[in-house]
Amino acid sequence: MARKKQAGATIPVKGIPIAAGGSVLRPLKAAEVVAREVVRGITAEGLQPGDSLPSEAQMLQTYGVSRESLREGLRLLEVQGMISIRRGPGGGPIVGTVDSANLGRMEALFYHLAGATYDELFEAWLFAESTLARLAATNPDAALREQVMEPYLSGDVEDAEHVDLEVYLEGHEGFHGAVSGLTGNRVFQLTFRAYGQVVAHHLSTVGDVRKLHKKLAEDHLKLAQAIIDGDGEAAATLMHDHLSEVITITRRELGSLLDGPVGWL
Amino acid sequence: MARKKQAGATIPVKGIPIAAGGSVLRPLKAAEVVAREVVRGITAEGLQPGDSLPSEAQMLQTYGVSRESLREGLRLLEVQGMISIRRGPGGGPIVGTVDSANLGRMEALFYHLAGATYDELFEAWLFAESTLARLAATNPDAALREQVMEPYLSGDVEDAEHVDLEVYLEGHEGFHGAVSGLTGNRVFQLTFRAYGQVVAHHLSTVGDVRKLHKKLAEDHLKLAQAIIDGDGEAAATLMHDHLSEVITITRRELGSLLDGPVGWL
Repeated sequence: MARKKQAGATIPVKGIPIAAGGSVLRPLKAAEVVAREVVRGITAEGLQPGDSLPSEAQMLQTYGVSRESLREGLRLLEVQGMISIRRGPGGGPIVGTVDSANLGRMEALFYHLAGATYDELFEAWLFAESTLARLAATNPDAALREQVMEPYLSGDVEDAEHVDLEVYLEGHEGFHGAVSGLTGNRVFQLTFRAYGQVVAHHLSTVGDVRKLHKKLAEDHLKLAQAIIDGDGEAAATLMHDHLSEVITITRRELGSLLDGPVGWL
Repeated sequence: MARKKQAGATIPVKGIPIAAGGSVLRPLKAAEVVAREVVRGITAEGLQPGDSLPSEAQMLQTYGVSRESLREGLRLLEVQGMISIRRGPGGGPIVGTVDSANLGRMEALFYHLAGATYDELFEAWLFAESTLARLAATNPDAALREQVMEPYLSGDVEDAEHVDLEVYLEGHEGFHGAVSGLTGNRVFQLTFRAYGQVVAHHLSTVGDVRKLHKKLAEDHLKLAQAIIDGDGEAAATLMHDHLSEVITITRRELGSLLDGPVGWL
């Protein structure tokens, strides 16, 4: 974490001013064209995670780009988790996943370079998740709301500290992912979850989120009930209070680790 | 645009289901570590756009990675516009900008792969920009609100069709960028503007947004006044109505070009 300290005072890190959309019409670089075409090919063919993509030789022919540009394009997608590349004989590119955590990792670079603070991230996170909760609760399909939220009503609020951290975090993120799925809007789902995932990664690399488990699971239970009840205002308020408390705990535990601009630790 | 048509009917393109945060704890690839460290170096040193970065030889020594990983890391940043690399003698990496349009371009890959529709993008866009307008109008610094919005009060609503498209679009995006800047939150600024930039790029590559100029400039004038007046509700409503009309026009003009998942054309 890049921080500048002097005589105990925090000097704000100077980021780069945010440009005003000047690159909306910038022509795509060759690697970006490759990345876009590979992605289009996946949806056009209806491929699913784990399916094989054409070989490098076939892609070179299809896209008519240099080997360097092809490889750069594939690496761009690999970093986003959208494809994976198996090395060695019988290897090659296969379809990966669409995971907002990968988007969050990229966004963290933008935040850091702009000098955005954790306060700014927390504000966006509170706002985004409350919105997701409201939209989930107002999904008109009551049966779907119940089906998706039912697993979180069971109230298993004890004894999470012995669970593997990665498994625990995936389960925790799973709840928020389920809420976002009920909005029926994949754009919200992908972009509004990324804030929380930047926070979750930060918390998990410097502390142990499992200590918070009992509180979090109780909140999730109440939230699941409000969403099943179709009460948008209650769901938004519960989510806001839930995250406000997590932010308070985070501030207390991390303190000066929240100085400096937002990053993916 | 990947579309599947059959007997006149649109068959929804099947995207990949969105994963639930499974990659929050994925270790960074070497190229990502390089990208992150270069970005941290820029903010820690207080470098600004156009400043030179260390040479490739120096970075190899600093980061202790392979030349391939270093180059991949730098290319990742180059695609995001965060650095640019001058080729040839006397060349080398220099600091670029932070531009949400570059984030939008990357997000469009996520939307496309998930099969997200333009309706979903429009919903997110309406919501995000209305929020930015409300927050801008409730910025407590009245003098700043007036200073930033004053240029949009002059009401130059005629004769934009002879302006270069790129210049026009930059000016148009400039207004929305100025509104987002008044939120005082760089996380909102970077992420909430990206929706509109995906739309703007789409509109500008298949049509001519300058035809809409008179209407847009009049709306901007009213919005600027509401923001100066500090009226958050009016600003949010005006922004919502402004974009709703743009969406209506877009639907009428583009029609079937909005079939298929969202992409960066």
